[in-house]
Amino acid sequence: MAQLPTVEDVARVANVSRQTVSNVLNSPEIVKEATRTRVLAAIGELGYRPHASARRLRTQKSSTIGIRLEPVRNGISGSVLDTFLHALTEQADRRGMRVLLFTADDAAAEIEQIRRLRDGADVDAFVLTSTSYQDARVEWLIENNVPFATFGRPWGTEDNPDPRHLWVDVDGRAGVSEATRHLLDGGAQAVAYIGWPSGSGAGDDRHRGWREALEERGLASGDLHVAVEDSVANGRAAAEQLLSSARRPDAIVCASDTLALGARLAASAVGLDDLPIIGFDNTPVAEAVGLSSISQPLEGVAAGVLELLLGPTGNSVRTRGEFSEEPTNRLLAPRLVERRSTHLALDENTGL
Amino acid sequence: MAQLPTVEDVARVANVSRQTVSNVLNSPEIVKEATRTRVLAAIGELGYRPHASARRLRTQKSSTIGIRLEPVRNGISGSVLDTFLHALTEQADRRGMRVLLFTADDAAAEIEQIRRLRDGADVDAFVLTSTSYQDARVEWLIENNVPFATFGRPWGTEDNPDPRHLWVDVDGRAGVSEATRHLLDGGAQAVAYIGWPSGSGAGDDRHRGWREALEERGLASGDLHVAVEDSVANGRAAAEQLLSSARRPDAIVCASDTLALGARLAASAVGLDDLPIIGFDNTPVAEAVGLSSISQPLEGVAAGVLELLLGPTGNSVRTRGEFSEEPTNRLLAPRLVERRSTHLALDENTGL
Repeated sequence: MAQLPTVEDVARVANVSRQTVSNVLNSPEIVKEATRTRVLAAIGELGYRPHASARRLRTQKSSTIGIRLEPVRNGISGSVLDTFLHALTEQADRRGMRVLLFTADDAAAEIEQIRRLRDGADVDAFVLTSTSYQDARVEWLIENNVPFATFGRPWGTEDNPDPRHLWVDVDGRAGVSEATRHLLDGGAQAVAYIGWPSGSGAGDDRHRGWREALEERGLASGDLHVAVEDSVANGRAAAEQLLSSARRPDAIVCASDTLALGARLAASAVGLDDLPIIGFDNTPVAEAVGLSSISQPLEGVAAGVLELLLGPTGNSVRTRGEFSEEPTNRLLAPRLVERRSTHLALDENTGL
Repeated sequence: MAQLPTVEDVARVANVSRQTVSNVLNSPEIVKEATRTRVLAAIGELGYRPHASARRLRTQKSSTIGIRLEPVRNGISGSVLDTFLHALTEQADRRGMRVLLFTADDAAAEIEQIRRLRDGADVDAFVLTSTSYQDARVEWLIENNVPFATFGRPWGTEDNPDPRHLWVDVDGRAGVSEATRHLLDGGAQAVAYIGWPSGSGAGDDRHRGWREALEERGLASGDLHVAVEDSVANGRAAAEQLLSSARRPDAIVCASDTLALGARLAASAVGLDDLPIIGFDNTPVAEAVGLSSISQPLEGVAAGVLELLLGPTGNSVRTRGEFSEEPTNRLLAPRLVERRSTHLALDENTGL
């Protein structure tokens, strides 16, 4: 880049000391008006701009939030984190904060990246996504007194939460319960659930939502549940298994749109084009093929994360003492997005 | 964050001057070995780390690349830029560069954001996406001597390119030509094209690819082309129009997977489940519903952008003088991804 004018250049042109220029920039009220006008004129004439690194060195703030860009795992559900990143960046921008991206292959590598950015004073606070049981990253951040907030709750320690862990999450259990009740209210007798193997916080939570909705109505959940890793092929195989079993389901709720798309394919392949299927995440794919889905309020999650870190309207990361009396987390409600058709090929009115 | 040890602390513990500590960090060869060892021991003992902002102030480098996160326009094709961002961040990380995100509603706002980040010395270079004819951003960056590279070529001035504009792009025209020839080779007689209204560089380029492939074979393209804005509904309406016309196409190439999905819906609705349709961008949606599509080499685009900015293996932005003899752009070839089925509901073997 071009050589920038320095504070010395401004001082020379305005015929004042370096300190006076600094005062005009940092404490204008202590400078006489005539002097201030002369300095500002010199700043304008030269195009002088205070160096951000110098400003940061002085304030010890970077006005930057760090976030790991998670590896692209599967293109369907992955769009949720991309949408969250868009919302976070846009809202941070309105508060004068920037978002710095980094990558890492696993939790240990993420901690190492966080350590480097913290050591360099490059980042004021971190936002973490996809929390797990006994999340090593969260433990490290608390132990090292690094400001952070997570999209995802402290799975496994919800009964005894650490107030230093700021988090925002979406109530997946409530979302799946609502979807299941909706299908039962619509006349379904046997609502099946295709979820993930136990061990993931979000997965276990969503599974519980389905089970509880059946239990509320006194319905047995026994053979209506299949757990598979998240892929379209697995969703399809799981639905094939359910649809060929003795107790054939008349509706299916899935832990993801990925699984729901597989279930849709399996149902259509045996002529069950009208079998109601509800996915999770309201992804572009669900919209495109007309699948009903449970939608996470990602704008709200981004707003919540920033409010916990910066306060309702602030533009710098708060210290713990500044909000010791405030809630340290938020659990947001998802929303069921119903689509008239859950079948791609035969419907003429998807409205897309 | 915790109070960090300072260079003064190191000097005191090592019993040397502040300048000596600085020499050990910046010019270790001029410090006697015994002294150097003592200072390094003190640095290790105290956990001292040179402040990144101070380092940056000294080197005038931020080791940071800025990129605008484009607004989420439509969830299907938007995944291309998200995938590019993943690739760019991952590859930048391996070179010790970070990626800073910002948002902007239009080109003017993007220029304003770039100006602010440039003024703050926060960013060494910018990466721009989605170039347009007479791109105001490119003109501004060149005029202001700000290092940048674009994913997208200088539409409209390709015949007389400005060597200060570094760019990487994908040859969409070649991709669409190849797809069209592939359909003609497979026996199609009337390959239609659903594209965008003229005026976008990438859209005009892809359209040309289809027209040229027909002309090569001496085929008329006249009534086989419909131009619409990018949406599933528009793709569907365009395909309905084509399929009900006198010269009914027996295959369709589309400028995007969004349009191709709409075309797929229209074809299936009139029983044409086997009508070959090829989209563009090889999005997760195309994969999920089994649509053939033209895939952009996004890892290669990210690598190309970084190589133009940093050199083959460098980890800081080069000045123009450092590579005046090298090519200033790269045009990469896309690849046709064929999928056995282009129909969601009736195929049992999508392999998903």
